[in-house]
This record gives sequence, structure tokens and C-alpha cells, in this order.
Amino acid sequence: MFDLKLAGGLLLALSLGGCAALETGPAQTVPVAASEAGVTEYMLDNGMKVLVKPDHRAPVVVSQVWYKVGSSYEYPGITGLSHVLEHMMFKGTKTVGPGEFSRIIAAKGGSENAFTGRDYTAYFETLSKQHLETALRLEADRMHNLVLDPAEFAKELEVVKEERRLRTEDKPTGLTYENFNAAAWRASPYHNPVIGWMSDLDHMTVDDLAAWYQRWYAPNNATLVVVGDVTPEAVVQLARRHFGPIAPFDDLELKTPVEPVQHGISRVEVRVPARQSYLMMGYKTPIVGSGVGGNGTEDWEPYALYVLSAILDGGSSARFSRELERDRAIAAAADADYSPYSRLPDMLTLDGIPTDAHSTRELEQALLEQVERLKSEPVSRAELDRIVTQLVAGKVFERDSMFYQAMQLGMLETVGLDWRLSEQELASVRAVTPAQVQAVARKYLTRDNLTVGELVPLPIESPTATPRPAQGDQTGD
Amino acid sequence: MFDLKLAGGLLLALSLGGCAALETGPAQTVPVAASEAGVTEYMLDNGMKVLVKPDHRAPVVVSQVWYKVGSSYEYPGITGLSHVLEHMMFKGTKTVGPGEFSRIIAAKGGSENAFTGRDYTAYFETLSKQHLETALRLEADRMHNLVLDPAEFAKELEVVKEERRLRTEDKPTGLTYENFNAAAWRASPYHNPVIGWMSDLDHMTVDDLAAWYQRWYAPNNATLVVVGDVTPEAVVQLARRHFGPIAPFDDLELKTPVEPVQHGISRVEVRVPARQSYLMMGYKTPIVGSGVGGNGTEDWEPYALYVLSAILDGGSSARFSRELERDRAIAAAADADYSPYSRLPDMLTLDGIPTDAHSTRELEQALLEQVERLKSEPVSRAELDRIVTQLVAGKVFERDSMFYQAMQLGMLETVGLDWRLSEQELASVRAVTPAQVQAVARKYLTRDNLTVGELVPLPIESPTATPRPAQGDQTGD
Repeated sequence: MFDLKLAGGLLLALSLGGCAALETGPAQTVPVAASEAGVTEYMLDNGMKVLVKPDHRAPVVVSQVWYKVGSSYEYPGITGLSHVLEHMMFKGTKTVGPGEFSRIIAAKGGSENAFTGRDYTAYFETLSKQHLETALRLEADRMHNLVLDPAEFAKELEVVKEERRLRTEDKPTGLTYENFNAAAWRASPYHNPVIGWMSDLDHMTVDDLAAWYQRWYAPNNATLVVVGDVTPEAVVQLARRHFGPIAPFDDLELKTPVEPVQHGISRVEVRVPARQSYLMMGYKTPIVGSGVGGNGTEDWEPYALYVLSAILDGGSSARFSRELERDRAIAAAADADYSPYSRLPDMLTLDGIPTDAHSTRELEQALLEQVERLKSEPVSRAELDRIVTQLVAGKVFERDSMFYQAMQLGMLETVGLDWRLSEQELASVRAVTPAQVQAVARKYLTRDNLTVGELVPLPIESPTATPRPAQGDQTGD
Repeated sequence: MFDLKLAGGLLLALSLGGCAALETGPAQTVPVAASEAGVTEYMLDNGMKVLVKPDHRAPVVVSQVWYKVGSSYEYPGITGLSHVLEHMMFKGTKTVGPGEFSRIIAAKGGSENAFTGRDYTAYFETLSKQHLETALRLEADRMHNLVLDPAEFAKELEVVKEERRLRTEDKPTGLTYENFNAAAWRASPYHNPVIGWMSDLDHMTVDDLAAWYQRWYAPNNATLVVVGDVTPEAVVQLARRHFGPIAPFDDLELKTPVEPVQHGISRVEVRVPARQSYLMMGYKTPIVGSGVGGNGTEDWEPYALYVLSAILDGGSSARFSRELERDRAIAAAADADYSPYSRLPDMLTLDGIPTDAHSTRELEQALLEQVERLKSEPVSRAELDRIVTQLVAGKVFERDSMFYQAMQLGMLETVGLDWRLSEQELASVRAVTPAQVQAVARKYLTRDNLTVGELVPLPIESPTATPRPAQGDQTGD
């Protein structure tokens, strides 16, 4: 199993082996856009988007296929379908046997994996550049030729249920995180866990999966992102060859409810055997392109919230580390989290573990004081500059990774934004002012907009002397 | 508009005029069951169930058609469909113009109406017995010939949105009730309001309604209940004549999630301008046939919970009236509510309005003390007997109404239970013991199983001197 947190979302993934053969030839698909940073965008005739970013530092290529489907496309009764389908995508097609996808990629020295989030399901391979075609051929094959075998499904469903027990039922922070989201969201599909409610897993059938696959897996609901030692022309030619023949489906309307305005604090408590307390707080916030929620969001607000979260928790010199962890020793850990990018408006969250000498209520109070301070006194230029410099350095460092570059492009495209935002991000972050940070704190970090989830540990029964694994791991992953 | 609370559910209804012609002839459908209390059950060849209960005290007949569909069949994105469809059922068929249904019934001196709940949508007529056939002809017609006119839909959708504003957005107790349910239920569809989330109403199309109608309105998803001055044979003959020719649909699987176990108290606050505070508390409880939820529910438990709620709030000599309202004057009003019958496990709820001299927190404390007392000391035989006598008297009184008799039969059948339960109910209630009341209090009325919704009034801005209507009306209606 493999965890990945991106864009504020809970991602679930499957760990498998992996591999691919680059072949070039005359390209005929004309780019629809190309950017300064070197991204070329194509659209195949069947509606599949292709983004290529050459990076010639090593003879390697990262290939990712992103589908616009994830748990926010589901609802109670059928939650978990996207994630189980992701597992089944490794179980064979009409011409490739169960597990063979992974064996082929591994045999060519590559690695592959996949993940499911609230807003996307993505499949990726990393391999020597000459093997790219193998990856694209296999991805195209499973886009329309998947075989959903009832026996394989039955086995895999048990794997997923065990994953759920491990990560939720038997993990107090995971259970708290799930309850926190369920308490915070009334109509938004972010209410539901990515892995699905257990009873929905219990009731899932292979026919449900087949319908989900038919509904969402098609070239006009997918984006291919390739980053590496390639040329755009060569990649799009391969893409046309392998994905081009796949028929698109008719666009179907997706009904996505809009979260109603919150009128007061929500609290949910989780009392289960655990070693440590844990506190999670979330304020509903806009995102980039948040016209979705309407209500007069300014374009700079998401970036101001992003900077705000870094002021609280952007490394060892940020306020949480300095004040809550070191100076006052109230928090054994304290985090702030916000992403400007998702399909639907999300939350800015604060979470933490109190030290043994302090209660969860004291930690909550300390976090609220931090929030109040953001409202009452503007951050100084010096502090803001230091934080922004660190943020920008982190972003630049991330971009050193081909995989991260591809992730960023695929994620932006798939949540309904524009991949060009990844190029504008640094400028948007640099433009944030102290007054803007104060303004978003005052506007969104309000009491009536808050949800609090609290893990209250009950004694752990230990009939044997076998120690349980520690429970203090971070939730949200 | 017309409100009706039944079986713990929120019912919404449409107020219209109404009427019908009884015609007799040789019956050929053989009863599948008949009960001591005089109910005869038939099954038409197309799967439609017919329940007839003769009641010859007056030359009147009540006719009800119940469909197994309601808001608990919906999910965020399409909430509100069942209720809007109920409104549209009065807007005409291929042969009956918009509003004509109501005019025909009214012209014959009858009345008609309809309501939508979490678990059902029902249509009914009350009229002189000779007009029954008119009602059945019209009901059969709109079961399969409904015309969904886009212009009528657009108008009616505005009516429903206005209804939502009146009952939820602009009614603080209604808003609190909606938030309370959303906070209590994580996976159960009782999470959603019967009238639908506003954004789902905003996104609703006439095509969505057409699909919902096709999906759920068919004879094998409906029950006809007729109570009145009729004979079973004559009724089933009419039913065969009018409903018999309608084709059934294939049974489709309905995925209903099971609510996960709650591990701690949930709280939701609603701070809006209002005149009075309001408090709502709910404990998740089993229902009759609660094998649905599994977890070792005993058959007598729902009836013990029913008696328990009457001990607290079964008239002026019950504990809430006596102790909280009169003796201690903590509550201006205090209620307990529980129904043993619904499609999915529900809650036992306590709600109330504190008196001016007391806070919501004090009222909550007082209600919790009442709950603790039920656990610590068994109710006396004398008190139990007095309460049960009153309950039984109330039930007998209700049964004096033909309408109520039909409601009871149709509701039980439609939530997936057996109409014979209505005949066994009094015996089940009489059999409850003090120890059983104490046992269910201890088992279900626990802190970790509780959700609390609190309306915190903000000052009402009154730019003009026009008084606002009082806000203290009961929620849940």
C-alpha cells in the first residue's frame, strides 16, 4: 500500500511492480497550446487531452493517465467504487492476464502505481525513455478492454476491506478524520471517505464496477501527462496510435451539490481505545476558481490562505513549531493544511496532538489564539518574506521531480482548472500581502465556519503483553 | 401546504381540492390473506398489492396509493426529486389536464392530497363511496401516463423552493432540524432533508424527474389501500380493472448504506436571528425488523423504546410535562419522539425550548438527568400502567379514523414491514415491562450514541416595526 497526500485530498493507492518502449515517427496532431515552461498541450480527435513536458536531465520518462472520477463523484450507497475499480485495473484485460501489467513494467525495469482521491483516479509509470510506448499501449488497453472477473473482484474486495480496517476502523486518527469530514460536510461529496463506507463495500458487486468503468473510463474523460526525456511530437504520435482508436462516450451531466452555508460550530467526538489524544479543526474555505461556491471570492484569496497556512506551519521557524511545540510545549505536533486546488471548495485545517502535560481543550484554545492573532495583527513584512521564500524554495525543489511536475499538471487539469496555474503559482504566492492574509483570516477563520473533531482516548485493553503500534500517526494520509 | 408527521419522518405535502364512483361486479382475484381485524390482502398479477378494510359506519371511502420511494432513496446531487415529483403528479396526464385531477375530485365532493416522506410517497382521496372508481381511475392513469411539462415543472420548482425557504432557510427551528439530521447521520440517507438541498433543487431538470418517475412509479412498487364502506371483492375488481393493465417494471437493486457505529457525541450549533432558543437531542435506536442494522436487537426493544418515550412525554401527566414544564419550569416545551416503524434505523429524539429564566445548557442537563433516571431506577408498575393505558387509548382513538387506519396499513407495508403489525401493536405495547424500559435506556440512550443540535438565537434585525412571526414552532413537522 502506498499513501500520498495531494491537494488536501485523501489519496489511496495500490502498490505494485512496474515498466515501458519509446518509438518515434511523424506527428500529425497539432499542439493547441505550449507554455514558457515547456508544456505542450494536444487534444486527440476523441477528446483525450495530452500534456507533454520535456525534461532532458536523465533518460527517464514519467507517464500518467488521469481520469476525472474519484470519491466526490460517488454517494452513500455506492461509495468506494472509484477506489476498488483502481485496484481492479491491475487484474487484466482481454489480452493481458491478471497482474501481467505490473510484471511487464517491472521486467523492463520500470515502476508503476496508481492512486484514487476525491477528485481523480490516476495511473502512472516511471521508466527508461525507450519503454514509454509499452506503458501507453498497456494504459490504452485497460482504458477500454478491462476484464472484471468475479473471482478476482471477490478477492480484491477483501483486500480493500482489510485496507479500510487498517486505516480507519483500527486507526483512531483515521476514524477521527473520517468522522470530522462527515460532520463538516452536509451536502458536499467530500463528506464521504475515499475508501467508501464499509456497508457500501459489503454491498458492492462486480456489475456495479462494470457500470462505473463504462461510465467514467473513456478518452474524453482522461488526460495523459508525460514528463521526461521525450519530444512532444513523439509522445503525441504514440498517444494517437494507442489511445486514438478508443471511442469517446457521450458527456453525461454530473450533479454536484453545493455545500450550504454553515451557521455555527460543529463538533464530533470519537471515543475509542487509543494511546494519544488528537484534535482536528477545519474552516470552510474557497479554492482557486471558487466561483463554484459563488459568494464573492477574490482571485487572490486562495493564495492568501495558502500563505496563511504556511505562516502557521511552514517549517521549523513557523509559528506552530516555534510557539506551540517549542516555547509553550502545548503541542507534540501541530499542523496547518490548505490547498488552493480542488474540484470543490475545501477546508483549511489545523490539527495536532497535545503534549502529555496538556489537554486537547488547551490545544484547541492555543490553536484558536493563533487564529485570532492572524486577525488582530497583520503579519510583519519580514515574517511574510521569510515564509514566502521558504514556500517558493519548496516549490522549486518539488519541481526538480519529474513525477511531481506531472502530478501538478494532471491534478490541475483533472480538478477542472488549468495546468498553466502551475506556472503562475509562484507569482501568485509572492504577490500576497500582510493585509490579504489578515483579510482571509477575518473572512473565513470564523467560529460559525468551524468544525472540530476530537479523538478522546479510552484505555487500550491488552490481554497479552504484545504492544500495539503507536497511534499518533498523522491523519489525512 | 399540509404537514403530517408519521413514523418519526418528516413529511411534506401538497394541498389541493379533491373526489370518486364505486362500481361493483364479480371479483376474480383471490385474497392472499385476511386478518381478524378485517383487512383483506390481494396481489394483482402485475405485482401491485391491494389492502382493503371495510368500515361501514359511514358511506365514505378513503383510497390511498403508496409508492416505495422517498428521500431515503435519494442522495446529495438528486435530493428532493421524490417530493417535486409528488407536486408534478397533479399537473396532468395524456388525457387529464393540469389541475384537472383535483377539480374532478372536488366536483364530486371529495378531497385529495399527497405527501412525501423519507420512505414513501403517497396519494389519497376521501369521498363518498360511490365515487371510489373515479379515484382509482385517476390514480391508475397518473401511475403510467404522467405528462411532465417543462413549463409546469419550472413553475412548480419555484413553488417548492419557496416552500423550502419558508420551512428551512427562514425558519430557525427548521434549519436546526436539518442540521441536526445532517450531523447525526454519516452514511444513512436520513442525513438528507426530504425537501432536498437547495442546490439540488437549483440543478433539477424535468428529465431528472422523468427518470425518477420511470424508475419508481409502477404497480409492483405500489400498494393500494382502501378503507371504508366497501367490500374487498368490489374494491379488488375495480383495482384490477384500472391498475391491472399497467405493466410492472423489472426490480432494480437499491443500494442503501448502513449507518456506521457512532463513537462519541456529535454537536451542531445553528446561530441565526431567532426569538427563542431550541434544543434537539437524538439517540440512534433500532426499529421493528431492525435486523437491518443487525447488532442483536431484540423484538421487544422498539416497543420498550416507544413506551419509554411516552413515559417522558405521553401527555400532561408524563414526566416532561410534570417535572420540566410545571414543577421546575425549565422547559417552555419538551418532547420525546420515537417510532418503531421506518425503513431504516432511526433516532429517539428529545427536544425542547428553555424558559426565559433558563439556558439551553440547563435544559440539556435536565433532559440528560431524565435519561439517567430511566437507567438508574425502573419505572414503577403504576406509572407504566398509567402510561400504557393512555397510549392504548390514543391508539384506539386514532383507529376511529378511516384515514389513520389506511395510513397505518400503507406505511407499514411501504417501509418493508407487515401490515399485520398494526394489529399486534397494542399487545406488544402492553407486554413491555419496567425492566425492559430500563434495559433499552441503558443500551441505547448513551453519551456516545448522542447527537445534539442547538439553535442559538442572534438578535433579530427589525428595520421596520413590522413584527416577525414567532419562531417557536416545533421542528420536525
